[in-house]
Amino acid sequence: MEAARPLALERKLYEDVAERVALLIEQKTLRPGERIPSVRAMSAQQRVSVSTVLQAYLLLENRGLIETRPQSGHYVRVRARELPAEPRMSRPPTSTTRVTVSDLVARVYGATRDPHIVPLGAAYPSADVLPTERLNRLMAQVARRAGRRAMAYDAPPGCPELRRQIARRALTAGCTIAPDEIVTTSGAMEALHLALRAVADAGDTIAIETPTYYGVLQLIETLGMRALEIPTHPRDGLHLDALETALKQFRVKAVLATPNFNNPLGSLMPDAHKARLVQLLGRREVPLIEDDIYGDLHFGPERPRAARAFDRDGLVLLCASFSKTIAPGYRVGWCAPGRFRERVERLKFMHSVATATLPQMAIAAFLDQGGYDRHLRALRRNLAAQVRRYAEAVSEHFPRGTRLTRPAGGFVLWVELPAGVSALEVHSRALSRGISVAPGPIFSAKQRFANFVRVNCGHPWSDEISRAVATLGRLAAEAAT
Amino acid sequence: MEAARPLALERKLYEDVAERVALLIEQKTLRPGERIPSVRAMSAQQRVSVSTVLQAYLLLENRGLIETRPQSGHYVRVRARELPAEPRMSRPPTSTTRVTVSDLVARVYGATRDPHIVPLGAAYPSADVLPTERLNRLMAQVARRAGRRAMAYDAPPGCPELRRQIARRALTAGCTIAPDEIVTTSGAMEALHLALRAVADAGDTIAIETPTYYGVLQLIETLGMRALEIPTHPRDGLHLDALETALKQFRVKAVLATPNFNNPLGSLMPDAHKARLVQLLGRREVPLIEDDIYGDLHFGPERPRAARAFDRDGLVLLCASFSKTIAPGYRVGWCAPGRFRERVERLKFMHSVATATLPQMAIAAFLDQGGYDRHLRALRRNLAAQVRRYAEAVSEHFPRGTRLTRPAGGFVLWVELPAGVSALEVHSRALSRGISVAPGPIFSAKQRFANFVRVNCGHPWSDEISRAVATLGRLAAEAAT
Repeated sequence: MEAARPLALERKLYEDVAERVALLIEQKTLRPGERIPSVRAMSAQQRVSVSTVLQAYLLLENRGLIETRPQSGHYVRVRARELPAEPRMSRPPTSTTRVTVSDLVARVYGATRDPHIVPLGAAYPSADVLPTERLNRLMAQVARRAGRRAMAYDAPPGCPELRRQIARRALTAGCTIAPDEIVTTSGAMEALHLALRAVADAGDTIAIETPTYYGVLQLIETLGMRALEIPTHPRDGLHLDALETALKQFRVKAVLATPNFNNPLGSLMPDAHKARLVQLLGRREVPLIEDDIYGDLHFGPERPRAARAFDRDGLVLLCASFSKTIAPGYRVGWCAPGRFRERVERLKFMHSVATATLPQMAIAAFLDQGGYDRHLRALRRNLAAQVRRYAEAVSEHFPRGTRLTRPAGGFVLWVELPAGVSALEVHSRALSRGISVAPGPIFSAKQRFANFVRVNCGHPWSDEISRAVATLGRLAAEAAT
Repeated sequence: MEAARPLALERKLYEDVAERVALLIEQKTLRPGERIPSVRAMSAQQRVSVSTVLQAYLLLENRGLIETRPQSGHYVRVRARELPAEPRMSRPPTSTTRVTVSDLVARVYGATRDPHIVPLGAAYPSADVLPTERLNRLMAQVARRAGRRAMAYDAPPGCPELRRQIARRALTAGCTIAPDEIVTTSGAMEALHLALRAVADAGDTIAIETPTYYGVLQLIETLGMRALEIPTHPRDGLHLDALETALKQFRVKAVLATPNFNNPLGSLMPDAHKARLVQLLGRREVPLIEDDIYGDLHFGPERPRAARAFDRDGLVLLCASFSKTIAPGYRVGWCAPGRFRERVERLKFMHSVATATLPQMAIAAFLDQGGYDRHLRALRRNLAAQVRRYAEAVSEHFPRGTRLTRPAGGFVLWVELPAGVSALEVHSRALSRGISVAPGPIFSAKQRFANFVRVNCGHPWSDEISRAVATLGRLAAEAAT
């Protein structure tokens, strides 16, 4: 943590600069199409280095506020002003809930099997932006060479090469994790499942962000646990004062959160919040299950730290996978369970004995051969551009009164439709027109967010998707009248 | 079921013949080394066809009672008489139990990670008897050709080609299963897990065989369910009268059993028992979770039917995998959940979203390309020979008073040490000498079977294994005095 301070300071600097420029745009001091101060000028004005300004401008570009014109400089994007306002902080009623979202989820997810349905529902990146050829080739290579090893159970904690690679990469998230702490899993869902079961039992209360990924809600539902929804801000994530109050009021057994790019919000919890969160929970010995599957998909210039980076008590169970960045279908994830390592390892054995050997070896080879960082840079650029493109289309086609998140990473948009519009109705009408979209209520244990939809932006923009977003907007507008 | 009758009749015939010859050997009417009546003579004597006698002799050969000498005929095996008596039927106390075997299991299973330990513990077949080269080559081929499909979530119910192949092969177990009923899983453990959760909740009572596979006990433990151990015979499996009594006495929520080659017993429930079992449960609407992972590994000439073959109510959830016959490390299994299909499919999504795509495709290709039956014939021959060889070594080296199962399939031996010998002690002394063996108590919810060990015979006989079995015998003898 000591060593991380200068970095954090630098981040603060360029975020400040970006924030100031964003404000100028917001207040129309800088208008759409207008040139913004050159990097050099801004550097002099703000008394920061040229590289800090460059980072600030990159951030603004990724947020879709400015654009670079070659040989000419940076300009306020023409369409940027058209983006509707952001949704407000969620304010769930303060009580725990038994969860029941499975029926709805089954419908949304079932749609992924049908190639004729436009995939704005389930959140996954298209194979077009993934290292398809390269990874499959590596898999073929690994399979040809693995011999007997491919056949044997890769008993928990799992493939040593992969665990070593994961430990190395954890540094980018500010975490020092020993390969021996890591347990590999069949994707992050299994990791979250094991983590939840390692720290809590049926009947226990789990505090979560709201909205939150429906897979987590289903998990809590199926394990007979109770969900306590904590107010969550679309930019900053978990509202820590609210969490602190809840911790006093309820016997919270664990917190499960996605500080980096909550799905569906795309929120990014600032480092200071992460530190406070870990401290808050550490004082009470409440474990934090941290879902960091989107952490590598930041639009800002730097990989955000995991909350785990601030943990000194072994109370943070860090879960992630390669499903959002390399290959959903390979089903390779992991958990670094801190002091719960042994329990998670045993649960893994009970769950599925072992993770498939060859997919782990292929992912480890991909990580080892150095293409991952290059791939991530391209992937982030693509996803940031896609999210921007989808957001513009939503702005264009959705009815007045629609609100829209500004995700700081990941690849989903959280769209608040005008009050009174039923997302469930929009969802089912869209499905009958061959378009899948995720309705808001599945992101809440209490099936709130009745007028929200989540839009998956994991697929490259195309005419078909353009038409689908326009249709969604029309359906929302019809439902609004 | 109508069509199956002649087959069942034929099976009855050769089993009768085999039984009669076995009795002659048992009573020393036919002595070790002596020639037994020729196929032709026996056919005339018993008024059955030549082919029935051939099947009977094959069965006896696989059981290790007789041997074929080329150009000469069939002989009573010289060592056959040395095999000690079989263990008796298990007689558990009649009460339900909360289960706690995980600590012990972790030690047994942990040993599989160490290549220097002689692997008589965990039950898995060596890569030497598996289609290692062929399958890995298929995997490489599939990976090179799969393109985008390899990258995508293979959403439940899972890979269509694989489900079609599984449905086709289910016929050999007497089952007609639609591909659409099947849900693919990460191995049979996940299938059993999903099946258990689909039919029962924490606190519910599950009737099981005793001894039973420790993975199942752990599952019941971790799901907070209660186990009700039913007396089980080392040859016939579940004692149905005892089960019927238990069903009257307790609110049994489901039965979980392995009619074909219970692990560790190697018992084979006769068809008539299977029919009665299904009927017994059907009348009470109690689901049967049938674990059939060893079904393809019969030593007798015919693939035994699954209990599911007798089910007309959709109450049998048939679970299996390719981990015991093709590749443990590929982690491909399945569940045909009958009327619980939808629930199992949803649970699968919650557990791990999807099964890894490429391993499923590789297994499907292997099944499709017709090598599976040929492979199975060789595998069964190898395993039967290995089990026989291990059994002989146990007979030779273990102390007087040892009892030994006669598995009808699979690849484990269940060894009853003389009364008073602590299997846990033998286990830990063996481990300190670099030998893993599974101690009896982990096969019981009540940690009974204090003087039993299970010996994995999945590895080809070798000097190292020979020495290890001799060491085990010596340790058991020391503990007996």
